[in-house]
Amino acid sequence: MNYEEKYSDLGKSLRSSLIRELLKYASVPNSISFGGGVPDPETFPRRELSQIASEVIEKEYNYVLQYSTTEGDPELAKQMISLLDNLYGIKDLDVDNVMFTTGSQQALELASKIFLDENSIAIVEDPFYLGAASAFRMRMSKFITIPLEEDGMNVDILERKLKELDNKGLIKKVKFIYVIPNFHNPGAVTLSLEKRRKIIELAEKYDLLILEDDPYGLLRFEGEHIPSLFKLAERGRVILLNTFSKILSPGLRIGAVIGDKEIVRKFVLAKQGTDLCSSALTQRIAARYLERYDLIQQITPTIKLYKSKKDTMMKAFDEYFSDIKGMKWVKPKGGLFTWVTLPEGFDTMEMFEIAKKKLVFYIPGQAFTPDDRPSSSMRMSFCLPPHEKIIEGVKRLKEAILEYGKSKGLI
Amino acid sequence: MNYEEKYSDLGKSLRSSLIRELLKYASVPNSISFGGGVPDPETFPRRELSQIASEVIEKEYNYVLQYSTTEGDPELAKQMISLLDNLYGIKDLDVDNVMFTTGSQQALELASKIFLDENSIAIVEDPFYLGAASAFRMRMSKFITIPLEEDGMNVDILERKLKELDNKGLIKKVKFIYVIPNFHNPGAVTLSLEKRRKIIELAEKYDLLILEDDPYGLLRFEGEHIPSLFKLAERGRVILLNTFSKILSPGLRIGAVIGDKEIVRKFVLAKQGTDLCSSALTQRIAARYLERYDLIQQITPTIKLYKSKKDTMMKAFDEYFSDIKGMKWVKPKGGLFTWVTLPEGFDTMEMFEIAKKKLVFYIPGQAFTPDDRPSSSMRMSFCLPPHEKIIEGVKRLKEAILEYGKSKGLI
Repeated sequence: MNYEEKYSDLGKSLRSSLIRELLKYASVPNSISFGGGVPDPETFPRRELSQIASEVIEKEYNYVLQYSTTEGDPELAKQMISLLDNLYGIKDLDVDNVMFTTGSQQALELASKIFLDENSIAIVEDPFYLGAASAFRMRMSKFITIPLEEDGMNVDILERKLKELDNKGLIKKVKFIYVIPNFHNPGAVTLSLEKRRKIIELAEKYDLLILEDDPYGLLRFEGEHIPSLFKLAERGRVILLNTFSKILSPGLRIGAVIGDKEIVRKFVLAKQGTDLCSSALTQRIAARYLERYDLIQQITPTIKLYKSKKDTMMKAFDEYFSDIKGMKWVKPKGGLFTWVTLPEGFDTMEMFEIAKKKLVFYIPGQAFTPDDRPSSSMRMSFCLPPHEKIIEGVKRLKEAILEYGKSKGLI
Repeated sequence: MNYEEKYSDLGKSLRSSLIRELLKYASVPNSISFGGGVPDPETFPRRELSQIASEVIEKEYNYVLQYSTTEGDPELAKQMISLLDNLYGIKDLDVDNVMFTTGSQQALELASKIFLDENSIAIVEDPFYLGAASAFRMRMSKFITIPLEEDGMNVDILERKLKELDNKGLIKKVKFIYVIPNFHNPGAVTLSLEKRRKIIELAEKYDLLILEDDPYGLLRFEGEHIPSLFKLAERGRVILLNTFSKILSPGLRIGAVIGDKEIVRKFVLAKQGTDLCSSALTQRIAARYLERYDLIQQITPTIKLYKSKKDTMMKAFDEYFSDIKGMKWVKPKGGLFTWVTLPEGFDTMEMFEIAKKKLVFYIPGQAFTPDDRPSSSMRMSFCLPPHEKIIEGVKRLKEAILEYGKSKGLI
């Protein structure tokens, strides 16, 4: 039968993510991929999780194998609350301030359901995290993008754009400012304390919510932790999204929404009709893990590993790229990514064809624009390839850059 | 801050499910609840799952603790395909015909995204499964309801309503017919072979999709399996939704969509932005379980247990209710529920207050109407309370019925 006329407008508009399509090539033998943003499986605490899984299924089967409440596991909520207190000094939360989601992608999608109408406006960063883009786009498409600088979102532009929206009588259509404050995906930069305060000030002035997405905050290589917007702002202004994917295991699919009780309640209602509840098993495994082990101690080797890979990549960049005029890259202070910008005139999507032949993969910046605009930038992750592959991959990338640059008369 | 003006229209409309609110009371000590539809935890194969979980985390950690593809575990897809062949004679499926979801609630929600616009029409059964109602309602609200009879949907009414819609030029707005063919939730009836054929004939005539939701099909107490609409219809006409929640464990959160490759691909695209992927861990646990154990043999004691509890409830009904004129109930041939209808004039929602005082709980039929209309029926599940509690609960319910009936002059 012909399905086309059965699809909804949304159904018709669904397209495969560019990243997904590009990464299909990355499994070719001998290829080196900086494309994915997935953790190194060797960092997963498999022995601990294996033992805990077996125990909780045996002993807590009537909880872990059963339907859970939509809110999620209260034992995990307790652990989360104490983590947020110990690590970030966020106090006075109780279980009603926390809800667990099926990965933080679901938190973004539920936020989109709760807040966005077709004519709503969302303020987002440029480059724009692809997962958020796909979640928000299922409900609307009007994004105001604010460029990232070395210390995060350009708050002057943010201020100007908000003023313009206010002057045009559109400020009520703006539902939230979406921010990834630490080790941005894909931009790799970290929002300064000063700018965090400024964003909060503007959100208060125009009565906007802030959606603070912090999957990478714990993976800091150097420098001091900067307080979260959630901690800095008046309570209720910020919804904090978190996840265990980067600090424990993505396979457990556990994200968290932390916010005002009324907002969390709305997330719960939206989740009811969306997937009823997340797995009680994976949530209880995480809860018992956090109970028994010191997370910070456990992830110290992971952070060390990622930092050393980052150092290897930065060193290779210095060696191979410093003679390419106009090329620049972010030196990340944590997380999984760096953001590389080629000289003016380069189109990293077009260049992808050459890189593909050289068996080196990255994500073209175009994937992170809300309007599918060509970009001279690319996202590169250093967390998965071994050190020697990082060096070899950067070498291949240099060849691709030179070949493309020459063919276009850019170099 | 005041969130009300931040919410989307959908956000504003979200209400807690009636079942959820009602079942809060059911945890009072000494209460007897026929309300929930959750499996008996003693039926979960905890020893097997405990061992498998420990093994797969230890040995397959780089798969089970990592992000999975959006489609889900190919090993589980293989098992699912062979199950559908062995149990139901459904042949010629390959992995591209199968996608796994975070419980079958997610499959309903994704179907709603893919097919339903605000002005779409869905044909549903009356009573209407609440989970489907909440998923579909997030996108639209125009339901055409077709009453259930002892052998399923009244196909004469279905035929007449489709004709009317066609005459009014509205047939293109109808996206699908939603059917729970086996041991209906909440209606407890099973769709006859003859009616299955008739529904397919009508779907072909008007070029409609059929959404066949079959969570309970394997839990048959008596009689022969009736072929699924998916098997009976031309390939591509029916989307089959399945789940491991009732035959293995709801805590794993594994639902399945089985359909034409093009449709399954749309489900995958919709899932990408919704929660990226379901847990690789719980999917691989299910896959290895199905590989090692004979599911039919494994669930035989479960079916026996539910059948014996159903028999206990039916016997208690005969004993306590047969003198209440005009009262009737469905004798289910499988599944978890029966559907009880009180004499005309009864309102089971209103009666709930009296039942609550007597510490016996059920779900009022009103919860299963698309328009929140009073109902003289109620859903009762027999799968969770022990035998003596079933008898005691029916006794209490009788008291509630008499008290309410007398107060209203109905008895």
